Amino acid sequence: MADRVTDEWLTMACPQPCPEYAASAQARQDRLTKPQGSLGVLERLAVQLAAFQQTDRPQAGNVPIVLFAGDHGITAQGVSAYPSAVTVQMLHNFANGGAAISVLARELGVSLQVVDAGTVAASEIAGVIRDKPRLGTRDFSSEPAMMEDEVRFALATGRRAVQRAAGSNVDLIILGEMGIGNTTSASAIAAALLGSSPSDLVGAGTGLNADGIGHKASVIAAALAKHGLSPSSAPLGVMACVGGLEIAALAGAIIAAAQARLPVLVDGFIVSVAALAAVRLNASCQPWLLYSHRSSEHGHRKVLEALNADPILDLKLRLGEGSGAAVALPIVRLACALHSQMATFDQAHVSGRESCL
Amino acid sequence: MADRVTDEWLTMACPQPCPEYAASAQARQDRLTKPQGSLGVLERLAVQLAAFQQTDRPQAGNVPIVLFAGDHGITAQGVSAYPSAVTVQMLHNFANGGAAISVLARELGVSLQVVDAGTVAASEIAGVIRDKPRLGTRDFSSEPAMMEDEVRFALATGRRAVQRAAGSNVDLIILGEMGIGNTTSASAIAAALLGSSPSDLVGAGTGLNADGIGHKASVIAAALAKHGLSPSSAPLGVMACVGGLEIAALAGAIIAAAQARLPVLVDGFIVSVAALAAVRLNASCQPWLLYSHRSSEHGHRKVLEALNADPILDLKLRLGEGSGAAVALPIVRLACALHSQMATFDQAHVSGRESCL
Repeated sequence: MADRVTDEWLTMACPQPCPEYAASAQARQDRLTKPQGSLGVLERLAVQLAAFQQTDRPQAGNVPIVLFAGDHGITAQGVSAYPSAVTVQMLHNFANGGAAISVLARELGVSLQVVDAGTVAASEIAGVIRDKPRLGTRDFSSEPAMMEDEVRFALATGRRAVQRAAGSNVDLIILGEMGIGNTTSASAIAAALLGSSPSDLVGAGTGLNADGIGHKASVIAAALAKHGLSPSSAPLGVMACVGGLEIAALAGAIIAAAQARLPVLVDGFIVSVAALAAVRLNASCQPWLLYSHRSSEHGHRKVLEALNADPILDLKLRLGEGSGAAVALPIVRLACALHSQMATFDQAHVSGRESCL
Repeated sequence: MADRVTDEWLTMACPQPCPEYAASAQARQDRLTKPQGSLGVLERLAVQLAAFQQTDRPQAGNVPIVLFAGDHGITAQGVSAYPSAVTVQMLHNFANGGAAISVLARELGVSLQVVDAGTVAASEIAGVIRDKPRLGTRDFSSEPAMMEDEVRFALATGRRAVQRAAGSNVDLIILGEMGIGNTTSASAIAAALLGSSPSDLVGAGTGLNADGIGHKASVIAAALAKHGLSPSSAPLGVMACVGGLEIAALAGAIIAAAQARLPVLVDGFIVSVAALAAVRLNASCQPWLLYSHRSSEHGHRKVLEALNADPILDLKLRLGEGSGAAVALPIVRLACALHSQMATFDQAHVSGRESCL
């Protein structure tokens, strides 16, 4: 079980992005051969990455993907359209290269680390790192999903995964997740942390109909009441009561990445909820978060608002696995290429503005 | 000047995308290891491309970019923040690899064909194809921008460029433009074709302030009145009165591409207005248009609505050059890779839905 001594890392302050590099990158953007601001979000991304990476030439070439999987006792309450067995089946699919995120990692030329942070798989799976305190969470409709030590273990699972990924010259990191039942857990965490009604956060997940969504919301509402969760509850306690092992691992990974000056390209609903929990655990990680997309999972919009996030894409994705972040990566890469390779007005002998008319 | 005999091509019917391939691609999407519909817009793109390309495995690897440049007599009326000389200066920048679209073409590994469809450049420019009936348009505040024969020449310029680009195994084509003053011409065309007030279509272009935008709108309103343009005017006449040589070339290129079963990834405001004109000239080209992004140029939203377009990106871009389409290309490529490479539920031995709850 988790070593109490190692828990201090969780609240250690993250370094902050460097405003001088942001200013100098913005000045370069304003000299490139285009009307100022005409590359919109691409300019903002290049400037942010310059500040993150403390460089004049930001890059997004080396971007490992780390995916955490976990199972959820709450699936016993009929909250998912897919059977719980799918989580472990998908671990094999990730390892065999057939899942969406496997295809994306290959196409993008980046590594994919798959971590079993808490599925019900009893044995090792080739190509999957096993780093879990137990097999799945407990059914949070009747008891806390995890003991606090199990949450701490899972947070450290996230940190260990980042340490493995962050070896050499990493530019940015993508975190993903898989776990049948995890939109239920994520919705419960968000409802507790934000003090929102579960029905404002609950969505179709893998594909519930309206009745299923209503049932899911009442299961969550009952659990929040049972565990006495509210916005004033400690975030670690919220995670223990209604969280997931992969969600805690994500939160730990986000904090560890920010502590290592590693920006995180946040994926969809689940990772955003983990980011919200991470920010509540350690607010200094927030500047290191870039948001890849607004998913079609109902509650994502509210969580993004709480994080002041302005995501790059809005493609009606709702798959998870880190897939939305992976799809946004080429945009970030092109933003860096434009920033570094475009000619300035002086270099290209192009005239500047002649008027503000 | 244009050969009248060749004009017949303009209204020849375009073939239509194949619904059988769309249906079979959709059936494949529904068997891939993900909840149905969870890849959102990426699923739609793969299905559309399968129908365009009449294949089970759509691709977007070979995607030439063709950029048309032109100058505009209307710049004499102070409608742009940049001097007209910038158009020709930018031709050199495109050819020398320093412009945004040059960087993007390089990063994406695609060809860039730059066509001088009507700039004021008097002599050849290395790396630029010269194919124009005159040096710039006339000032449409006092006379028609082009004679009808000049418009026909420019439409054929677009067709010739597509024929050069469409050599071997092209999957998709990107069209771009450059021309100081061309948001004024495009806004005038759109206002005439849609019967809208110029103020609903005029935006900042390369960077006008509110006074400049107001002035631009009144210049256009006066020109529409002077030339007696309305939604019932012939589209070729609208193009002659207030159009641009590069805009007519874009419209011709769109029609020629659709006739050659070549889908077009439409860029921003100017290319969308050219697409609107193309659809008015030959409605059968419309199914071949994919929309890459919603730009921050004010009038783009209205033009996209008129085309029933649902663009992939919304990144506050307003540069032109084909840059928005180029930035969207990696998304289309990933949509194809996911479609072709993901495992099905059967292949991966993953369980399907167990309920619709």
